[in-house]
Amino acid sequence: MRSKVKDLLGMEAGREVLAKGWVRTKRPSKEVAFIALNDGSTIKNIQVVVDRSGELAELLPKISTGTCIAVRGTLVESVGSGQAVEIKASGIEIYGECDPVRYPLQKKDTSLEYLRTVAHLRPRTNTFGAVYRLRSQMAFAIHEYFHSKGFVYLNTPLITASDAEGAGQMFQVTTLDLGNVPKDKKGGPDYSKDFFGRQTSLTVSGQLEGELGATALGEIYTFGPTFRAENSNTPRHLAEFWMIEPEMAFYDIKDNMDLAEDFIKSLVRYALEHCREDIDFLCQRYDNTLVERLEGVIATDFVRLGYTEGIEILKAAVAAGHQFEYPVEWGIDLQSEHERYLVEQHFGKPVILTDYPKDIKAFYMKQNEDGKTVRAMDILFPKIGEIIGGSEREADLAKLEKRIDELKMSRRGLEWYLDTRRFGSCPHSGFGLGFERLLLFVTGMQNIRDVIPFPRTPKNAEF
Amino acid sequence: MRSKVKDLLGMEAGREVLAKGWVRTKRPSKEVAFIALNDGSTIKNIQVVVDRSGELAELLPKISTGTCIAVRGTLVESVGSGQAVEIKASGIEIYGECDPVRYPLQKKDTSLEYLRTVAHLRPRTNTFGAVYRLRSQMAFAIHEYFHSKGFVYLNTPLITASDAEGAGQMFQVTTLDLGNVPKDKKGGPDYSKDFFGRQTSLTVSGQLEGELGATALGEIYTFGPTFRAENSNTPRHLAEFWMIEPEMAFYDIKDNMDLAEDFIKSLVRYALEHCREDIDFLCQRYDNTLVERLEGVIATDFVRLGYTEGIEILKAAVAAGHQFEYPVEWGIDLQSEHERYLVEQHFGKPVILTDYPKDIKAFYMKQNEDGKTVRAMDILFPKIGEIIGGSEREADLAKLEKRIDELKMSRRGLEWYLDTRRFGSCPHSGFGLGFERLLLFVTGMQNIRDVIPFPRTPKNAEF
Repeated sequence: MRSKVKDLLGMEAGREVLAKGWVRTKRPSKEVAFIALNDGSTIKNIQVVVDRSGELAELLPKISTGTCIAVRGTLVESVGSGQAVEIKASGIEIYGECDPVRYPLQKKDTSLEYLRTVAHLRPRTNTFGAVYRLRSQMAFAIHEYFHSKGFVYLNTPLITASDAEGAGQMFQVTTLDLGNVPKDKKGGPDYSKDFFGRQTSLTVSGQLEGELGATALGEIYTFGPTFRAENSNTPRHLAEFWMIEPEMAFYDIKDNMDLAEDFIKSLVRYALEHCREDIDFLCQRYDNTLVERLEGVIATDFVRLGYTEGIEILKAAVAAGHQFEYPVEWGIDLQSEHERYLVEQHFGKPVILTDYPKDIKAFYMKQNEDGKTVRAMDILFPKIGEIIGGSEREADLAKLEKRIDELKMSRRGLEWYLDTRRFGSCPHSGFGLGFERLLLFVTGMQNIRDVIPFPRTPKNAEF
Repeated sequence: MRSKVKDLLGMEAGREVLAKGWVRTKRPSKEVAFIALNDGSTIKNIQVVVDRSGELAELLPKISTGTCIAVRGTLVESVGSGQAVEIKASGIEIYGECDPVRYPLQKKDTSLEYLRTVAHLRPRTNTFGAVYRLRSQMAFAIHEYFHSKGFVYLNTPLITASDAEGAGQMFQVTTLDLGNVPKDKKGGPDYSKDFFGRQTSLTVSGQLEGELGATALGEIYTFGPTFRAENSNTPRHLAEFWMIEPEMAFYDIKDNMDLAEDFIKSLVRYALEHCREDIDFLCQRYDNTLVERLEGVIATDFVRLGYTEGIEILKAAVAAGHQFEYPVEWGIDLQSEHERYLVEQHFGKPVILTDYPKDIKAFYMKQNEDGKTVRAMDILFPKIGEIIGGSEREADLAKLEKRIDELKMSRRGLEWYLDTRRFGSCPHSGFGLGFERLLLFVTGMQNIRDVIPFPRTPKNAEF
């Protein structure tokens, strides 16, 4: 019966064991060879000791970094430092050899840039093993958080005929023959011949459909892939990423902020409690302030600040000599430099900024009585910037329709959405969390392409 | 402080409470009016009693099915049958009225067919409340199952340049202007100008990428949307559906079967333990053998049967006079009628069919020594047919390459996949479960469009 490395490392010496995994390193010494074996269950390896004078010795030349083997043996106390136990091998079976000359992970270049070019193999490295385990743990923490509160996990559609909030550029989805697109009477593409009989795209947000769920089931959340066809080649943008979008009936903006703050603190706490070995590794390797930053978020109350007050603080900074690249005045969409000033320099902790000018926010946000601002709330994080964006939603049909008209949007395509306000409208709120943004924060990685297994970016869709 | 209906129904009488929700029915009697209030937290309603001689009486004309209200009052013992407690209202706030004439759910027609035409409102019905809560619970059960076993949740890409197993027709993803597609030198679409610089599609399976994860992290699973651009207008097909695909290093076909059987039994057990009220409702309303069928699956050992023996049984049935529409002979891909005969008539329980002819299965399945069959395993369920399909994977690079050549597939596009066999290959296995197929089984619903909130089918992509 095979044991995973994670379990082996916690067992008492003396047992006969069977381990299976991939060789990380092989190191010969005078009388024995040491093999560090990893099976992905933990960042740690189990050390396998092979007697160089025994019959297993003849297998050693076939064993190198990347080789897949099964090892039988006795768990014994380890004399070396690092681990309590190791396996004294009595049998080895080689499942798959690994040519040291050709193996891409043999190369001296183990930079994150290089590993992106072999993304199909990078889960075999310590770094990506740690990141992907963390990603998995965080996904579970998210499901567990909402499940424990009675939220319904709602799968909103990926292929959509709605353009959501007009939030971003969309990918088209089609079965039309691009070499010979059928034309309609006006000479445009004849979408009536397309699979869905109309033009369809990949969703940029499940929020509007999420509101359909919340106004029936009470509290829902989505957690799924989301798309942006934006030509942004930055360390913070992906064409395909995962979003979590909770939507709650009977929550006002304050309830929404309370939930968002508690949610994100719970996730960070979960990471520290359940993924400590992987976080410690990443902290040590890439970012030695990581643990401190994570603990800081849990320990502190987030600042809650109106946009207007935020602008005042930024103006005061300018007056005091601080130089921003972009001008500061009421009505601007905050730039990253502004957000970072507030979070990192002025307050030194996460900030929830509320009540933004309506002209820089989406149509569905609840309008304040001042006629100028809406009940938006963005959570700004150190190093990451905006990690959560949300709002209380406009529940009043007439106000919502007026805003749609002002923005010259089409009401017709939104009738289904307006039905939520037409029939038994309720106060409700919600927010969106970019999963990869969260992972940047929790792992300390710098590039968003390194926290998703198969990143999709302009001109890049390998595998 | 608001309480959810689910919690209110379990509280002791005597408390002052605040409930918020939507009116399911209003029923006047002589001295009082009864309002059945639901907030989506449970299939049950809380009864609100309004004194018709008090000051709240003037609100009653504005309250009808679908109206959203907040109710303050005292929880009192209910004199009527059905529930232990009800709310004696002392205050009512109307959040949103609901015009009885226009409200689509007022119509007499509450058939599932009609409700599909108002899919944006159907979560407000008992049936879809139950189905979506069950869907959410099953999703959680799946994550919990794999998480507890140490599997890593791996997000495989939705937009892909790979065509997976050639399993199904694919949707194209593009940002090219369909009204004016740029041409390459040969006159075809110039994909170098497309967003990803190449032709891309929506995934039909995450398996091949999942194998990249398993051969590094040990045990992984995917759970996400999957697509088929097949023009199938049947109660069993969707263009967009959710799949669970676990993939495990060091599992042979037997381990794979053991896991799949245990997995599906755990899910059914979870449903019976955690969703009993919703299941009982669906059982009563749509399918009175539902609970019995669910309990049957848990209690029984699945039959494990070779394809060849399965064919013998079917041939014997034909010889004994049973008539099938399609002929039975070794080498056929089993039709639904054949699967149902084995499962429902011959064995009377779920069947795991193994060792299919290689010519009807995908290239990556492990080849048996007979040269004719592969280590495939399909789980066949009563009423549903195939609910799980999987196999042990071919770990031998030479055999895999030979098979790819035989099938005239392109090796070049699969080099990244072949690297898993080239470098430290390991025995491994996996399977796929269609989430909506599972939900058909667990809910007893007949049409797959009724177990996903926003079904996508040919000529249909509303919302």
